[in-house]
Amino acid sequence: MNKSEFRIQNSESSLGPGPKGFRAAGVAAGIKATGGLDLGALMCDGPTVAAGVTTRNLFASAPVLVCRERLAKRGPIRGVIVNSGCSNACMGAAGLRDAHEMTRLAERAAGTQQGEFLVASTGVIGRPLPMEKIRAATPRLMESLRPDGWEDFARSIMTTDLVPKISRRSFQVDGADFVVMGVAKGSGMIHPNMGTMLAFVATDFPIFYRHAASALLRSVVHRTFNCTTVDGDTSTSDTVILLAKGGARKGFGGGSEGGKIFKAALLEVATDLSKAIARDGEGATKLVTVEVEGATAEIKARIVAHSIARSNLVKTALFGNDPNWGRICCAAGYAGVAFDTNEFSLKLQGKEVMRHGMPTGFDARTLSAALKSPEVLLQAKIGSGKGAACVWTCDLTYDYVKINAEYTT
Amino acid sequence: MNKSEFRIQNSESSLGPGPKGFRAAGVAAGIKATGGLDLGALMCDGPTVAAGVTTRNLFASAPVLVCRERLAKRGPIRGVIVNSGCSNACMGAAGLRDAHEMTRLAERAAGTQQGEFLVASTGVIGRPLPMEKIRAATPRLMESLRPDGWEDFARSIMTTDLVPKISRRSFQVDGADFVVMGVAKGSGMIHPNMGTMLAFVATDFPIFYRHAASALLRSVVHRTFNCTTVDGDTSTSDTVILLAKGGARKGFGGGSEGGKIFKAALLEVATDLSKAIARDGEGATKLVTVEVEGATAEIKARIVAHSIARSNLVKTALFGNDPNWGRICCAAGYAGVAFDTNEFSLKLQGKEVMRHGMPTGFDARTLSAALKSPEVLLQAKIGSGKGAACVWTCDLTYDYVKINAEYTT
Repeated sequence: MNKSEFRIQNSESSLGPGPKGFRAAGVAAGIKATGGLDLGALMCDGPTVAAGVTTRNLFASAPVLVCRERLAKRGPIRGVIVNSGCSNACMGAAGLRDAHEMTRLAERAAGTQQGEFLVASTGVIGRPLPMEKIRAATPRLMESLRPDGWEDFARSIMTTDLVPKISRRSFQVDGADFVVMGVAKGSGMIHPNMGTMLAFVATDFPIFYRHAASALLRSVVHRTFNCTTVDGDTSTSDTVILLAKGGARKGFGGGSEGGKIFKAALLEVATDLSKAIARDGEGATKLVTVEVEGATAEIKARIVAHSIARSNLVKTALFGNDPNWGRICCAAGYAGVAFDTNEFSLKLQGKEVMRHGMPTGFDARTLSAALKSPEVLLQAKIGSGKGAACVWTCDLTYDYVKINAEYTT
Repeated sequence: MNKSEFRIQNSESSLGPGPKGFRAAGVAAGIKATGGLDLGALMCDGPTVAAGVTTRNLFASAPVLVCRERLAKRGPIRGVIVNSGCSNACMGAAGLRDAHEMTRLAERAAGTQQGEFLVASTGVIGRPLPMEKIRAATPRLMESLRPDGWEDFARSIMTTDLVPKISRRSFQVDGADFVVMGVAKGSGMIHPNMGTMLAFVATDFPIFYRHAASALLRSVVHRTFNCTTVDGDTSTSDTVILLAKGGARKGFGGGSEGGKIFKAALLEVATDLSKAIARDGEGATKLVTVEVEGATAEIKARIVAHSIARSNLVKTALFGNDPNWGRICCAAGYAGVAFDTNEFSLKLQGKEVMRHGMPTGFDARTLSAALKSPEVLLQAKIGSGKGAACVWTCDLTYDYVKINAEYTT
């Protein structure tokens, strides 16, 4: 990895250039009542090798259905058009018609063939897309696509997010420079079950095989977006799209050296974005990392980590800087994974509070002070196996309740 | 059912007499910092037929382990001693020693054989029981046992509960009068997985067979306490105990007519207590009933109902009187149960908001006004099967966060 950059703050500091051949944009189409950016696009100058991972929610939104259909057809993909403010979910045939029309509007303005754009929508469920506004704004959106338009794109997909989420890594393979860059949105209705919320990642690294891109994306999503939870609610719109610039004669094939370097960069970008989503969880005051080790299998460690990360009691205690480790044991104990509680050990902020199933005795005041931090680390050891997992979440606060009690009405 | 009474409010109105032969009490032992009642007991004049259902949490508390052991031994059970303010969970061998000593203190004061008392504790996890206080207070507790001591007993087991929870039903079998009476506590860390929180039910109906009492209790718990969720957190202390006065030459055996009448009364008492727990959920402003029908099996309906009832987004929307039905669809859609979303219909407060997977169109203002109620009913139909289930929960409010961010420190 030659260079690594990560930005989630809204600053004018320099984020390096995006992957060669890609342009991005975001405009205000009037979908959001606030008048903010709400229609975005990401496009490649030529065909890409595309891969996607979408929600497992039965009420998958219309844009999710369109993405699945187009990715399954394996035709060339040139880009994606996205709106915020309305998720176009639970709208039946009308929703599908609108999602298809959104892609056609983008394709027409971009001069591509039909079927070459993907689409995503995020916002309130069960309301029709305001198509007149989208029809009116799409030509302007596509005209404003620029190589440095990534921040506008990131802003245009935000809903309750407080900050745009962008991550970039550059790397070298065989002396040539490449970039992988991604944006994500997500703040509430965040719980992994395949993709979590929207993320779009582009690279100029020439992935040749579609199935390799797809396998690689799934592997990375499993370790990143699917390790993020804000409130345990799996959205109807979850979508992660990877667009790799095509046109290469040969490129990354399976386990090549270049492919490994690319995968490492993609993993870092996806990790950045996943942590940014947890950190920016609705109402959150802190990023919480839950590490579980010693399980007899990775999946068991994941289940225990998710159980802890999803517990409202753990999350409210962390909001209150309360070293209430009993709640963490409790959440591990009901996870549904068998382990010997006499082997259970737990650390909060590096301080061991439980060893082999018994409290160690610690100064609650000192530990509470240590929890007053924007980043909190919980580490549980449930046995002597090799299975380990890490999940990112946030605390549960008054503001989560406020945001979600006042969202639509 | 001749007569049905239910009281959760603290009023001096008359609750009918308890089951014959049972006495109850609650005293202040100084375990709670507030000085409130915190040590209670329920005792029968003779041996009982006892049944119990306890938590599936791996970190089952020491009292839970003692109850399991004694119920498995099938010796005569005379009563139960309970404290609030400290759960005696995650305390290893010392916790087990303390739980055993609590039973011996009660047995000695009551003059029963060793092993004839059950024990339960509820409160903070991971702190030692203050045994000196319990030693000092138990003789006084046992002396104060009275046939009309049920309310003191109900108060002595409260933690964050705002109201004591008592329910009573009287019924006749073959011309004789019987009573089933129960108390429960529970407000946070409430999510079903076998027993949920503490509940103690006594009856003077002569159940003869222990296995019949046990099967009957499990069946009722499955439909009542296990249908209650406040925050998705399954406690380490969950215990439901049924004590049926013994001494009968013959009594309820399996499917006898009297047994059926008793079971109906027990089901009503357990339903009352379960709804009382949900209504008194930490910070709750309303009782929420989630009914799911049309599933191909009861377990599938239960899973969908629990998924809706556990969703933080649904629960915060209800707190805000927000008819945000999309969140209910979303929670049903990620429950992990396959159904045809085109068959999904949903009613809020009796108003159909979604029919066959499409919004019906409704006046949000009117529906929001209807949601401003201390009881809210959500009814989902997920197909045309015969599987149905009902789950009780509450809304998620600022006060839930406040209570749980400030609990131990």
